[in-house]
Amino acid sequence: MSRFFTPALAALTPYTPGEQPQNRQYIKLNTNESPYPPSPQVCRLLDEEKADDLRLYSDPSAAVLCSAIADYYGVQPANVFVGNGSDEVLAFAFQAFGKGRRMAFPDVTYAFYSVFAALFGIETRVVPLDENLAIDPADYFLPGEQVVLANPNALTGKVLPLTEIERVLQAHPDDVVIIDEAYVDFGGVSAAALLDKYDNLLVVQTFSKSRSLAGARVGLALGNAELIADLNTIKYSFNPYNVNRLSMKLAAAAIRDTEYFNTCCARIIADRDFTAAGLRQLGFDMTDSMANFLFVRHPQISGRDYYLRLKEQGILVRWFDEERIRDFVRITVGSHDDMAKLLAVTADILQAD
Amino acid sequence: MSRFFTPALAALTPYTPGEQPQNRQYIKLNTNESPYPPSPQVCRLLDEEKADDLRLYSDPSAAVLCSAIADYYGVQPANVFVGNGSDEVLAFAFQAFGKGRRMAFPDVTYAFYSVFAALFGIETRVVPLDENLAIDPADYFLPGEQVVLANPNALTGKVLPLTEIERVLQAHPDDVVIIDEAYVDFGGVSAAALLDKYDNLLVVQTFSKSRSLAGARVGLALGNAELIADLNTIKYSFNPYNVNRLSMKLAAAAIRDTEYFNTCCARIIADRDFTAAGLRQLGFDMTDSMANFLFVRHPQISGRDYYLRLKEQGILVRWFDEERIRDFVRITVGSHDDMAKLLAVTADILQAD
Repeated sequence: MSRFFTPALAALTPYTPGEQPQNRQYIKLNTNESPYPPSPQVCRLLDEEKADDLRLYSDPSAAVLCSAIADYYGVQPANVFVGNGSDEVLAFAFQAFGKGRRMAFPDVTYAFYSVFAALFGIETRVVPLDENLAIDPADYFLPGEQVVLANPNALTGKVLPLTEIERVLQAHPDDVVIIDEAYVDFGGVSAAALLDKYDNLLVVQTFSKSRSLAGARVGLALGNAELIADLNTIKYSFNPYNVNRLSMKLAAAAIRDTEYFNTCCARIIADRDFTAAGLRQLGFDMTDSMANFLFVRHPQISGRDYYLRLKEQGILVRWFDEERIRDFVRITVGSHDDMAKLLAVTADILQAD
Repeated sequence: MSRFFTPALAALTPYTPGEQPQNRQYIKLNTNESPYPPSPQVCRLLDEEKADDLRLYSDPSAAVLCSAIADYYGVQPANVFVGNGSDEVLAFAFQAFGKGRRMAFPDVTYAFYSVFAALFGIETRVVPLDENLAIDPADYFLPGEQVVLANPNALTGKVLPLTEIERVLQAHPDDVVIIDEAYVDFGGVSAAALLDKYDNLLVVQTFSKSRSLAGARVGLALGNAELIADLNTIKYSFNPYNVNRLSMKLAAAAIRDTEYFNTCCARIIADRDFTAAGLRQLGFDMTDSMANFLFVRHPQISGRDYYLRLKEQGILVRWFDEERIRDFVRITVGSHDDMAKLLAVTADILQAD
């Protein structure tokens, strides 16, 4: 920290992203990227794209992309916001709805929620998951605070049914409830279906996982037009040209290609089940994940050791050195071959012990 | 504003970006984009790029791009920060160095400074330009406040010599002085030359103007390694993957192609001089701009009328409905043909009056 850094943020502990190794080729199962390329429509568009277009600014209203997203979800463009990845969308939502209020979220969830709160000076209530690492919706019935729930939850991949999300929404008529659906396309049901009924619902999604566009940086929010207008107030006060000009086009092509999207999601779900069965056979215990990752532990090997041994063998997964979850590692579902390799290497590791 | 929007930000007035018309083809001289395509190296790279790469996250440390920038400026990669356009870089700098302190900047300058301050709750001291619309450096000698100066200044294009920047830096041993050099490549001298001498200097630049990459969203800061680390603390608390994966590669190719860059800047400077001479002949008065725009007024036509008449004729320029500058319009320097057209249309407009 320089002597010029504001004391107001001296205690800030930034988020630690997963390793992005530059030196060695790993089987990369640590940051929940897709093993499949973006839609062939996206690839074709990029092949045809001429750089000349990049000399111009992006459309700050992101009209074309918002329309494509609105068509997909059956809402109006005024119900859609897009950002530079869903991290930016979430950060804007924290600023717009959290500042000067309190935000509640689980202890085991996407680690960025507490970082955003610290960055923007927002009070938090961190609610422990139950003993099965599940969210108890009743813990979030306290009116007067905003709620942020990842569904499926980050790390565990566990899903809350929409009926439970509705109970939370009903308990908060005057507070915003943010449902972060980064992983919803792998077996969850989107709360977008509830948008007509609840003006306090903000659904956040990303193109980084199920649409294979992590590097293009596109996230989105769906909500009542007034909530979306509030997010635009923040965006136009921070970075009006927040989404890359080319990414807007690629993301619009990606969301229009429903067939390819469905195929990729189905393959990931099938390989998640394949991997889960294989790991269970090897004695692993795991949460019931409906995401594109598994959250697993084994009675004979610590989370840290399993992570390190896999890394030695050229497979990157994610281990969090944190209370309650230290025994687990989080494994992204890659290609079928990647997962077969993971199972074989894991069997070897356990045998060697 | 929804009833959920935080009262803490209720008074926020977002920045208004220049018009980005989607319906009609204009000669677009309103947002200071380059009339020239990005470097042929950038175009070639984009042609060869395969979308498959976009399924992966960007390198959050932006190692390759920071290296290329460091080589260009003769500094170390640890002295370089990159962001999603220079707006994001500036926003991070306001958070890192302004929060809980005061920031001073001119009344006529880049309008975003006051918006960032409002967004992050930072106290400001807004200092009027002198009667010639020039910055008087002595106005910024007050220690204990941070300083932000655009050099060349936004809107006016006027330049402060480095000797004057040094006087400001020397008056602020314990405060950060941010020099926003979005327009420096068109005739200014970068304060990057002073980085060795002053640990309180942060230089901000952009790839959006002189490098023809507005749509790729890449901005940068140069400074003491500790200041850069502070910006990274903010970035990793907000959006670690803030720069598009493809943009990183394109920007690195752009900054390595010095020859093309010099050619484009020279052409813009020549056409700025050509346009300035033509407008003066038509009776216009203007600031001495060293940027890729002219800031002009005419005794017989109001800024608003001139802007509207040009728009009718298919030429977009920027007019600001604000005290002190209402008589002026800001005209981006486009291609030679664009500027010849502007002069011809302007002569017609004045004749018709």
